[in-house]
Amino acid sequence: MDLFDKLESRPGPLGEFTSDGYGYYTFPKLEGPIGPEMKFNGNDVVVWSVNDYLSVGNHPHIREVDKNAAEKYGLSAPMGARLMTGNSDEHEALERELADFVHKPEALLLNYGYQGIMSVIHALVDRNDFLIYDELSHACIVDGKQLAMAEKSVFKHNNLESLEKQLKRASGKMKPNSSILVVTEGVFGMTGDLGKLKEIIALKEKYPFRLLVDDAHGFGTLGEDGSGAGTQLGCHEGIDIYFGTFAKAVALIGAFVAAEPRVIEFLKANTRSQIFAKSLPMPIVVSARERIKLIRQNPQWRDQLWENTRKLRTGLIDLGYNVLPSESPVTPVLTEGSTELAQTIMREMREEHGIFVSGVAYPVVPKGVVLLRLIPMAGHTDEHIQKTLNAFEAIKPIVFKEVDEAVTAE
Amino acid sequence: MDLFDKLESRPGPLGEFTSDGYGYYTFPKLEGPIGPEMKFNGNDVVVWSVNDYLSVGNHPHIREVDKNAAEKYGLSAPMGARLMTGNSDEHEALERELADFVHKPEALLLNYGYQGIMSVIHALVDRNDFLIYDELSHACIVDGKQLAMAEKSVFKHNNLESLEKQLKRASGKMKPNSSILVVTEGVFGMTGDLGKLKEIIALKEKYPFRLLVDDAHGFGTLGEDGSGAGTQLGCHEGIDIYFGTFAKAVALIGAFVAAEPRVIEFLKANTRSQIFAKSLPMPIVVSARERIKLIRQNPQWRDQLWENTRKLRTGLIDLGYNVLPSESPVTPVLTEGSTELAQTIMREMREEHGIFVSGVAYPVVPKGVVLLRLIPMAGHTDEHIQKTLNAFEAIKPIVFKEVDEAVTAE
Repeated sequence: MDLFDKLESRPGPLGEFTSDGYGYYTFPKLEGPIGPEMKFNGNDVVVWSVNDYLSVGNHPHIREVDKNAAEKYGLSAPMGARLMTGNSDEHEALERELADFVHKPEALLLNYGYQGIMSVIHALVDRNDFLIYDELSHACIVDGKQLAMAEKSVFKHNNLESLEKQLKRASGKMKPNSSILVVTEGVFGMTGDLGKLKEIIALKEKYPFRLLVDDAHGFGTLGEDGSGAGTQLGCHEGIDIYFGTFAKAVALIGAFVAAEPRVIEFLKANTRSQIFAKSLPMPIVVSARERIKLIRQNPQWRDQLWENTRKLRTGLIDLGYNVLPSESPVTPVLTEGSTELAQTIMREMREEHGIFVSGVAYPVVPKGVVLLRLIPMAGHTDEHIQKTLNAFEAIKPIVFKEVDEAVTAE
Repeated sequence: MDLFDKLESRPGPLGEFTSDGYGYYTFPKLEGPIGPEMKFNGNDVVVWSVNDYLSVGNHPHIREVDKNAAEKYGLSAPMGARLMTGNSDEHEALERELADFVHKPEALLLNYGYQGIMSVIHALVDRNDFLIYDELSHACIVDGKQLAMAEKSVFKHNNLESLEKQLKRASGKMKPNSSILVVTEGVFGMTGDLGKLKEIIALKEKYPFRLLVDDAHGFGTLGEDGSGAGTQLGCHEGIDIYFGTFAKAVALIGAFVAAEPRVIEFLKANTRSQIFAKSLPMPIVVSARERIKLIRQNPQWRDQLWENTRKLRTGLIDLGYNVLPSESPVTPVLTEGSTELAQTIMREMREEHGIFVSGVAYPVVPKGVVLLRLIPMAGHTDEHIQKTLNAFEAIKPIVFKEVDEAVTAE
């Protein structure tokens, strides 16, 4: 069969939406500076869909830093992979600062989070090893697992019993040169719950394994000093390899892993997407340094983020919405309904109320369920929150219509 | 066994060098604006190791564009994956311009070349399909192959007989819903030879397959109009999916694929590293547009690049060096010798002659062989070339010492 004919006949789970709702439900264009107020289709909207948690992306000082760094270095430097010609004092300084921020001895900068963690997982384990990961792990972990040569097994989401079963199984099959790597997340991005890191780490007393934590959403937002989910949960030292990305609280691209020196040394020489692809551009590195400095100097931004999160959550719950028990700023509102309902809610919120929220339905969540995921930022004001709650109140008849109909039909 | 103890005991093929030669042979820092003259360890060097083929990275107009774009947009926008909140008019305009440049109906922008092509390969084939690739394919293709669910087989580098054998084998095993994807490169980056695209495409008359070509080094440098290896070889139409990166001639990060609309439509909804990772930053997109415009407006840059390539090659051959028969600007000089020789040559060239070249030895090339890879750029002058040839003349006793000793020992 011709490959292209086949692709046309199997558009994939998201294929239908990208062709139907392109530019609206998918590939929408949010215009203007990153922040709680942006433009969509020419209209002002209050935005709850961007992960600039601490509102650092459009901070006046950062905007100045961004411009100056691009002026000083241009966007081309450095050329080549870090290993070949892509290194700089700025890259190395950022690594030291990241390690210091997350309380690990050393850090390795990654040119992009997705390929970075994929290659890190790929590098860490060999065919004698066992790789055990949470079933709700982000796509980049799933792809990293797919690359890895180790024997893989999955444990039920945050289920210690299920993890222990896999650990026991792996331990029983280990050869003298076998090792175990467990991978989970600090914050699960769709639902906002934290990985049960403390309980997982406690299992090290019974089983020999190392723990890699993807803390994309926790880095900068969780823990007293922003050093992430491990700090928040009081078990940071038990995280053997900490992965953080700049794509959320730092509002850039790029990422890093932090661990003890011999691990970083190993990864420098064995992480394929870093050895064989271009280094992170200089202005990104310079800006990341300054953003991290600001984040460390302004813990009140984190307080404000949490204050906003609390107000939004409480307000939604008071309105009768089913807000999942998130332990992070991620605020997921779950309701029964179809893909059409998800689209109706998004359209109604945008067109009638000037609120930009993102919703997902099947296949991202189970059939019959609609998940609206709201991302509070430090820059949201009480007015933004109130306006949003008013809108959620106004759309209640639409949101709960399918639920009511289902009840009536019973 | 403890995973970290094991990593320490198996440093990997490059591990030895990164610890020994860090900052010099590996992870060197080239400072100052990207170009033929940069600083290394505080000294001026003529650089033959960066892929800014057309010297666009430090073009005064581009430097202005870079600064202005960073000032206008900052480095944060857009936030989120393209599909969710990361789209913009600029991203779409760049896609149209890329498609036009490489003579394909549509293009899809990728946030990073490495993960981009990995996910594209991953998306294109399913478990009923056959994926056949050249053995010297770049790491990103090898990783993409690793992710793909198809049955995989490799053909000997540029060997039509070997490819046909694999095509025959796959054709014989095909089910009604099976398809074949062949993947090769426009330019093989280490050796500079072109993929035998015309001959591969001719095989379509005998076997049903689609062809994906990674033209990282050919995009912008090859073909009368810079549209790549397919144009250069007079068979561009036969390339079903054209992959180009910005990491070489465009001197940025990011990449794209171009193909017929139904394929791009499919990839928009199924390319995991694009659906689940942040979009290309706005200043990169804006600058890419302007760089591509300049590249199209200035074909004389390509002429100059080729002129420089010719002079460098001829000069090296006249000096008695074994320059591999590259068909691209990549200029590979092969000599017999050990890893130590590769390091001695690099050190001698840098310290005594102010010439920065990169050399690779085992395990990147076979044992006993040293490959120096020189990358000419449009911005190299006759003086740069002459100075480099003088240096290559001066180090001949060192380069050929091991060869002479080997001959003497026989």
